[in-house]
Order: sequence, then C-alpha cells, then structure tokens
Amino acid sequence: MYLTDEKVVVLGAAGAIGSNLAQTLLASGTTSNVGMYDPFAKGLEGTAEELYHCGFPNANVTWSDDIGEALTGASYIISSGGAPRKEGMTREDLLRDNAQIAKQLGLDIKKYCPELKFGIIIFNPADITGLTALVHSGLEPSRIATLAALDSTRLQTKLSQHFNVLQSKVTGCRTYGGHGEQMAVFKGGIKIDGVSLEGVLNGQTANGIGMSAEEWADVQAHTRGGGARIIGLRGRSSFQSPAQQSVFMLRGVLGESYEWPSGAYVNTNGMNHIMMGMPATLSSDGIRYTMPEGTQDDLNALKESYEHVVALRDEVIGAGILPPLSEWGASNPHLA
Amino acid sequence: MYLTDEKVVVLGAAGAIGSNLAQTLLASGTTSNVGMYDPFAKGLEGTAEELYHCGFPNANVTWSDDIGEALTGASYIISSGGAPRKEGMTREDLLRDNAQIAKQLGLDIKKYCPELKFGIIIFNPADITGLTALVHSGLEPSRIATLAALDSTRLQTKLSQHFNVLQSKVTGCRTYGGHGEQMAVFKGGIKIDGVSLEGVLNGQTANGIGMSAEEWADVQAHTRGGGARIIGLRGRSSFQSPAQQSVFMLRGVLGESYEWPSGAYVNTNGMNHIMMGMPATLSSDGIRYTMPEGTQDDLNALKESYEHVVALRDEVIGAGILPPLSEWGASNPHLA
Repeated sequence: MYLTDEKVVVLGAAGAIGSNLAQTLLASGTTSNVGMYDPFAKGLEGTAEELYHCGFPNANVTWSDDIGEALTGASYIISSGGAPRKEGMTREDLLRDNAQIAKQLGLDIKKYCPELKFGIIIFNPADITGLTALVHSGLEPSRIATLAALDSTRLQTKLSQHFNVLQSKVTGCRTYGGHGEQMAVFKGGIKIDGVSLEGVLNGQTANGIGMSAEEWADVQAHTRGGGARIIGLRGRSSFQSPAQQSVFMLRGVLGESYEWPSGAYVNTNGMNHIMMGMPATLSSDGIRYTMPEGTQDDLNALKESYEHVVALRDEVIGAGILPPLSEWGASNPHLA
Repeated sequence: MYLTDEKVVVLGAAGAIGSNLAQTLLASGTTSNVGMYDPFAKGLEGTAEELYHCGFPNANVTWSDDIGEALTGASYIISSGGAPRKEGMTREDLLRDNAQIAKQLGLDIKKYCPELKFGIIIFNPADITGLTALVHSGLEPSRIATLAALDSTRLQTKLSQHFNVLQSKVTGCRTYGGHGEQMAVFKGGIKIDGVSLEGVLNGQTANGIGMSAEEWADVQAHTRGGGARIIGLRGRSSFQSPAQQSVFMLRGVLGESYEWPSGAYVNTNGMNHIMMGMPATLSSDGIRYTMPEGTQDDLNALKESYEHVVALRDEVIGAGILPPLSEWGASNPHLA
C-alpha cells in the first residue's frame, strides 16, 4: 500500500510547502511514516491535526518542534525549512540566513541521523543550501540532492501551450546548472509530439505549429521567470509543485523512475566542489549524475551557470558558513 | 496508473481546498483528467500553472472561468466553491448565499452535464448545499453526496491521542446527522485496540488507559469543535482534510472501499426530504445509505440533529431558494 514504512521527516512542515509535502507523501502512498518538524509549534500541531483528520489508513504521523526528536530514526528527509525573504532583505541577506540554516541542518543530520539514506533540500537558493548541508552532514555526496526539476517542467508547460499538445507530448525538456536567472535552458533533446525542437526551429512544424528563434528566446525567458509568474498570479510563491516534485524524487529513490534533472554534488569535468542541476538517476544508492548532452550553446550556458553558482558558494565561504575548499574534508571525509 | 481517465471537475479550484483537491486527484492516481473551474480567473490560472509544473505523467489538466466550458464532459464533480464567511456576516447570510450558489450549481449540472455520474458537495453548510444542488440538478439522489467524514476522523484522532495508540487502531468512529454543533457523535461500535469504548466507559482499559464519562463528554465536545480548533492553530480553516477525504470518497465510487459516513439524501424512517451524514456505501451506482446502529442515546441524538437540519432546510425554502416540498418533483422528478 505504501512504498515504504520507513520514517520520512519533513522539515518546515508548518509551512505551505511542508504541509503539502506531508499530505502528498501519504496521499500518493509513498510512505506510511511521516515525521514533521517545524520551530513554529502551534502551526505544526495544526498541520498534524489536519493530517490526522485526513484519516490515512495505517499512517503513523508524528511531529515535534525538537529537531533531535524529529530526526531520530529518520531514513529520509525533505527540507523546505528555510527563512522566507522578508521586506527590505537583500538577496545576500537571504543567502546568508538560509546557508546558516542549511549548515545547522547538516550538523543536525550528523548528530541525530548519520545513517540517513537520502535527503532532499528544497529551500532557496537550493544549490547553495544543499551543498552547505552536505558539507556539514558528513554524508556521502550520493545521499543529498536538491530539487532542480521545476524549471524543466515550466519549460515543458510553456512548450505544450505553444504547440497546443498535452504536456507529456513534450519530452526532453531540461534546464541544468544553477536554479535562477542563470540557469542553462537546454535546446538539444527536446521533442514535441515526436518532432525535434531543433527541427522546428529550422522550419518544421509540430502539431501544425512552428516556432521562430524569437519565440524560443521568449520561451526561455518565460521559463526563467516561471517562479515570479506564480507569485503574480497567486499572490504567493509556488508550493504545490515543489512539494509534488520532491515526492517524485523520493519515489525515485524508492524504486520508481525519475526522469527530471536533480541537484547533485558535482566534482568532475572542470566543474568542482559544487551542487547544481544535472542529469541524474535516483535509486536506493542515492543520486548519481552524468554530464548533460546538448548543443554547443547549451554547454556554454551550463559553464556560465556553473560560474554563477561558484560565485554564490564563494560568498558563503567568505561569510564563514562553509569552510574553505581545502578544509571540507575535516567536515566531511567524503569530500576530502 | 490512474483509476479513471474520465473528467473530474473541481469547482472552486483557485481556493485552498480546490487547489489541493486538484493536486491530490492527480498525486493519488485517482484521475488523469482534471478540469478546474473558478470565477477568479487569475488565481485559477496560477493553480493550473502549479499543477503543470508538478509534471504529472500523462495528465490532462484543463481550466476555465466559464462554467459551461468547465462542466461539459464532466463525469464527476467535487465542489468546494462556496462563498467564505465574511466579517459582519450572520450565519443566516452565509446559509442564504451558499444555498444560492448551490442552486445555481444544480441548474448548471442540469444544463451542462446531466449525465453526471457523481457529484460531491463540500462547501458549508454541506447538508443544505448538497440538498439544494440535488433538488435543482434533476439527478437521481444516488448521484449527489456531501462530505461528512471529518467529524468522524476528528473523533478518531482525539481517541487515538487519549489512548496513545495509532489512529487506525481506533475503529468504528462515526458521527451522523448534520455537520456542526448539532451532530450526533455515536458511541456504539467504537473500539480502541479491539476493546469497545462502551466497555472502557464501564471500567475496562485499552492500551492500559481508561476513560471516564466526563472525559468522553470532553471528547465529544472536542469533536464538535474540531474545525474551530484548526482555525485557532493554523490561522485558517481546514483545507487539506476536506480535500483528501473528498478524494477518498471519489475513489469509493471508482471501486475502492470507503468506510466513513457520507451525506446522503434521506427519505425513510421518519426522516424525510433531507440530506445528512449517514452510514453509506459508495460504488459505481453512487451512494446508498443505511440506518445507523447505536445506543438509544445515539439514536436520540440523531433525531435531534435531523430536526436541526430540517430547520435549516425550511429556512432555505422560506427564502425561496428551495421550492416547497410539494413542488420538488417539478425540479427533480426523482424526488417527486
């Protein structure tokens, strides 16, 4: 009935993403055993009550505002527990605050659930929070991943709307590298109803519809602005899609196939000591990435995106939240 | 992969319950085909975008702020599309507003999807909105039900907390009649870890724990206040549990077992021309209710709850939103 009965801990469970995550884990039959943590005890209890009122068969839902109690016995965690961006806060303030939270998360993992099978980090900037948690957790790099799919599903959505086909008829949509303005939106590999996007950009049609270079540039820009667009429409940032895609990722670790990019620790091919969106397979062994294939433009964009994430990482090192690269092995022997 | 590919329309899809419903229908593999309606087009588009970004495999998600377009082709509907209670509004104002919305829903069903297989009405007061929609829809009474499970799951939750057992170890929790202060919280049939509640109230223990008559009275009061308690804890009314339980109901119609009370059209045993929470089975034939079994106290409470719902119904007849009982057959020949 459930893919696992092992404990999956949701961090930030009183929030919009976290409470949706907890429900979706149960509703989708992913785990019967959901632990919830949030420092906001009252809201956490409210979320827990709602889950109890759902009446999930054979569910074991627990909650605590004590991080040690919550993490003990966890086989898996999904953390949406970052600080929200507040009025007057700069991007740098948010980066520093959330990197600090990620550092503490890593230390808590090391202390309370060092045998963790898999952790998915989804609070922004996820490339940095995931990396910071990994360094301080002491876990193997295959055991921590970040959510990196939403830009790709946004790209798929926009193309399906342009060509007026069902979303699943658009395949191979992939953005890699950092999440944010500097993401690399890949063109190579995309097919619409079986017709390659490159062919369409060269004059073919898919479902009787063509696409100009300008239109493709617009689609790429639309993809980069996908998150802001949700805020504009709903008056709040996206919460359903991050929760749902995180559950799909966990299901990948539990044996289903997962086809979207994931944020992985990358340390090859001239891209080193970084976490960013890559082609990846998920399994009981955790995450394993491969190098993306794409056009030369695509690969150049990836390199640029990498440089951008490096700059963010170095900012966090400068702030003392991550140690200098040469000292990572002291925090995490797997990164030595 | 999905229980059905037939169109399930969610009304009120831009709201908290409706947007959760749409996601849960897909996440739980209930239907691949979700139509969404809301008069608030911008929020509706935002919800739709979020669902697209979830990347559900082989999903067909459509949305419209035109009720005719939304309902056309619907095999099933779930409506959370009532007006919220606003500052300064009396209970009577809300009753009238939502009964009016339910009347229009019934007329829209008659016009756009008269072959509807099943409709689940969940906006408050659901006993009245469900009844009103049924009368005006022209559908067989077996084709419309209301959500009536949450009081029962709240009762189960509270007992599981008192006896410190997993929720599913508490069985037979049932509240019948109207939803609200006047619900009938049944005692007969409840078991905790296999021990009957009546036995416990007579001095036995379950999981080593007893319960006094006063404590049972507190549990009943707690159950009646379950909805208000969520508002107190979360700062908003419950939305996850109504969405989830509605999906469980639909899964019952699609062939799974559904064990909670449902709101059904009742017209036997001295309880006539009313909709209220009853023991019921759901199947492809729709809803079929039976008479509840319980202690004499339980049955007396049911009768009182019935009288309360009758009074609400008569208020709506008085307001001209429902026709007089003698004229129901003109709106719906199945109720003649």
